[in-house]
Amino acid sequence: MQTKDEELAMTESAVESVRDTTADEVDALATAAAAAAGPWAAMTLTDRAGVLRGVADRLDAQAAELIPLAMRETHLSEPRLAGELRRTSFQLRLFAQLVLDGDFLDVRIDTADAEWPMGAPRPDLRRMNIALGPVVNFAASNFPFAFSVAGGDTASALAAGCPVIVKASPGHPALSRTVGRLVDATLAEYGAPSGTFGLVFGRDAGVQALTHPAIAAAAFTGSTAGGRALYDLASRRPVPIPFYGELGSINPVFVTEAAARTRATEIAAGLLTAVSASAGQLCTKPGLVAIPEEAPVFSELAALIRSNPVPTGDMLNEDIAAGFTRAVAQVRAHPNVELLAGGGPGEALLLATTARTVLADRDALMHEMFGPATLLVSYRNTAELLELARSMDGQLTVSIFGDQVDDTTRALTAAAVGAAGRVLWNSWPTGLSVTYAQQHGGPYPATTAPTATSVGTAAISRFLRPVTYQSVPEDLLPLELRTDNPLSVPRSVNGARAQ
Amino acid sequence: MQTKDEELAMTESAVESVRDTTADEVDALATAAAAAAGPWAAMTLTDRAGVLRGVADRLDAQAAELIPLAMRETHLSEPRLAGELRRTSFQLRLFAQLVLDGDFLDVRIDTADAEWPMGAPRPDLRRMNIALGPVVNFAASNFPFAFSVAGGDTASALAAGCPVIVKASPGHPALSRTVGRLVDATLAEYGAPSGTFGLVFGRDAGVQALTHPAIAAAAFTGSTAGGRALYDLASRRPVPIPFYGELGSINPVFVTEAAARTRATEIAAGLLTAVSASAGQLCTKPGLVAIPEEAPVFSELAALIRSNPVPTGDMLNEDIAAGFTRAVAQVRAHPNVELLAGGGPGEALLLATTARTVLADRDALMHEMFGPATLLVSYRNTAELLELARSMDGQLTVSIFGDQVDDTTRALTAAAVGAAGRVLWNSWPTGLSVTYAQQHGGPYPATTAPTATSVGTAAISRFLRPVTYQSVPEDLLPLELRTDNPLSVPRSVNGARAQ
Repeated sequence: MQTKDEELAMTESAVESVRDTTADEVDALATAAAAAAGPWAAMTLTDRAGVLRGVADRLDAQAAELIPLAMRETHLSEPRLAGELRRTSFQLRLFAQLVLDGDFLDVRIDTADAEWPMGAPRPDLRRMNIALGPVVNFAASNFPFAFSVAGGDTASALAAGCPVIVKASPGHPALSRTVGRLVDATLAEYGAPSGTFGLVFGRDAGVQALTHPAIAAAAFTGSTAGGRALYDLASRRPVPIPFYGELGSINPVFVTEAAARTRATEIAAGLLTAVSASAGQLCTKPGLVAIPEEAPVFSELAALIRSNPVPTGDMLNEDIAAGFTRAVAQVRAHPNVELLAGGGPGEALLLATTARTVLADRDALMHEMFGPATLLVSYRNTAELLELARSMDGQLTVSIFGDQVDDTTRALTAAAVGAAGRVLWNSWPTGLSVTYAQQHGGPYPATTAPTATSVGTAAISRFLRPVTYQSVPEDLLPLELRTDNPLSVPRSVNGARAQ
Repeated sequence: MQTKDEELAMTESAVESVRDTTADEVDALATAAAAAAGPWAAMTLTDRAGVLRGVADRLDAQAAELIPLAMRETHLSEPRLAGELRRTSFQLRLFAQLVLDGDFLDVRIDTADAEWPMGAPRPDLRRMNIALGPVVNFAASNFPFAFSVAGGDTASALAAGCPVIVKASPGHPALSRTVGRLVDATLAEYGAPSGTFGLVFGRDAGVQALTHPAIAAAAFTGSTAGGRALYDLASRRPVPIPFYGELGSINPVFVTEAAARTRATEIAAGLLTAVSASAGQLCTKPGLVAIPEEAPVFSELAALIRSNPVPTGDMLNEDIAAGFTRAVAQVRAHPNVELLAGGGPGEALLLATTARTVLADRDALMHEMFGPATLLVSYRNTAELLELARSMDGQLTVSIFGDQVDDTTRALTAAAVGAAGRVLWNSWPTGLSVTYAQQHGGPYPATTAPTATSVGTAAISRFLRPVTYQSVPEDLLPLELRTDNPLSVPRSVNGARAQ
């Protein structure tokens, strides 16, 4: 254990320089992760939960050092970062509780049955989920706590019983190193095997980790181009591995005529907040908003911005800012796109075009602008609105603003469910809650794994694989599968849930 | 509806010629599947279950026509095919019951909670699994019913609410066409939308279907080389899709010294049956059996075969027979491999070598021979046995024959769990039961998707994706997610299972 002063000193110096991890170091970390996989998975569920809670406690205890460091490296505000850190430690504790509950094991027991109607006697079969093996987690730049070193992918992989190697985001290297040391120290303190956690820096180190034979799965949050390149590497390995990439989304919002007529001011204000929060650098920022032609929302928005330009804060780093400038320039270059309002330094940016234009040029205009900008799209009638809704690629979220349940909102909901992992009603998609029923995913290009989520308790499933024991004697079975259920884990017996 | 005579006539003529599906026809089928996806997924669970049961009934009713056709095309025996058909209709009914039970929906409801400890109020979130979309199923040659047109992948995809296009095995085209027409007719009779089921013939047609933009997932059972090639195509699509490939396995068997000493005759007889059944053309045929040096199992086996050569029947077709001959020749070419017994026409083949040889040349000797052959591997001591066990690549099954629970059997079990989807004790891996707790899968190269199973009720999960509804009014929610639970589906509320 270090003293607070020692840690602070380390933190200060860490800002100075973080060098790339060498090839030998990556190999050593991956080899250590492989060696740790068995012992880490074999720790009791209680001990595993204790480790997760220990990391959560440690993050909370170090908030006073971590938040200023994060502010320096990301330009995000103190309240935003304090909330994010709270979310991060909460998430670790939620996964700890999930581990204790044992539902994620999906224990199924089929007792031997000579009369099984398949036509042959059924042997005694007992199935449970086990840890998949070492996971590489590519951290995101825009959530320096919640989607980074000790964030959701790390929490869910550790909860599943998998060692984790985090590839640090280049956007906050010193914070990553500090949190990494904190995680490492906590794991050691709680008795996790050495090698359960590792941290690497640098693009080459990330690629090397992803393609290392010891690695069994990978998670990623970032851009479509970067995520696809890594997915391709994972798929082309001699032994391909699951790659859970969350690549981004336009998060379309569909405002019905009824809603636009009656709630223009409220919708305009909500949109500005959703677009400008965290300088628009959120995977769930609404990037396309369909509004009826002539609706007052346009003028409300323009008036709102002109009277009171929406400050957005600095962007995360120069790379993100440059990428945003390029993406906006591409959309603005379209002859039928106009600047509606904003766009001055540190101001949210509203662009406008028509549904006809978007439908005629989807690839150019249904295009993520990762930053404080959105494209307002005017539609002439419901048919055009529905055509637009049905033309969407895979999305993390689709939001519908409506006044009533009718044919239009039913059709919009059906289109939204067909394209997205999360469908919202009269709500903005930013501010993702970490819960049991959350789904943060969706069809490609929102993710590379439409059957999975990267947020919420179901995220643990990504890092598990089932094993069935056939006719194995009680003493050789893991405790989770024994007849007397000594761990009291939930289970199904002969197809029915047992108490 | 056709009369029995008409169907028989069709069946007879079908043997004559089945031409490859044209590119235009494949495109039409994929487009029809995309159009059917919404309506098929929207059929009630009761109706969907009814369709699956209807197909099962129809298969059973046509057994007298289907089995002779299968015998002609596969050379499998009448009892084996009758049992397989029974398994196939049972499997359809098991999935029908699963659909009615509703557990596969994994319904989760989080009620709004202003005090949610994440640090921000939790909105109302409701999550359920929905159908992923049209699935291509590459049928296997070795199970003309159970892993073919109306087999497990088709049953689980239809149960999930996904349209299916089957790429027929070239090994039994006429049977495939006959079963395809039967499925098609039954679906139409029960009101499933046109396009819910399709059947294509020919390698190019399969590739075209797999890479068609309308397709959302694929399942495959077959060889490692073929499966990997298709996995690569699926992963390299502009929109990559999940590819669930079951590629094959050596299914190692580890016989401890104690078991070899006390039960040599029983083990020898069981092995011969497992190797020769269905001419060894099973994904779960034991292909490597580790036995202590000097154990009587060797001599028992040799004596058994010499006194009574084990007839294996003809192989499925010339391609499979040629592949088997090549694989056996490769193993026999190794200077340290000897022919122990068998190998005459239609006889099971026993090869022998040492653990040292296998450990020194894993790639050449841990190698699937798809047919009635196995490699007996003698080990000198427990350390060598465990080294061999720990050197395994991914497997569908690993079997352990032992007399007691001790350090050796514990270590073997740990190694087996690390490598395989199913671990057996004093049992042979052939004769896979279709149940709730079954796992037919495993790490690569056993499969391309270690988190999934292709047999048992959990196979349905491959074709589902979750969607969360946020703050959506009751009337816009699907029935499965409504507060009053009109369908009485099982669900979790606020993280706890509700009744």
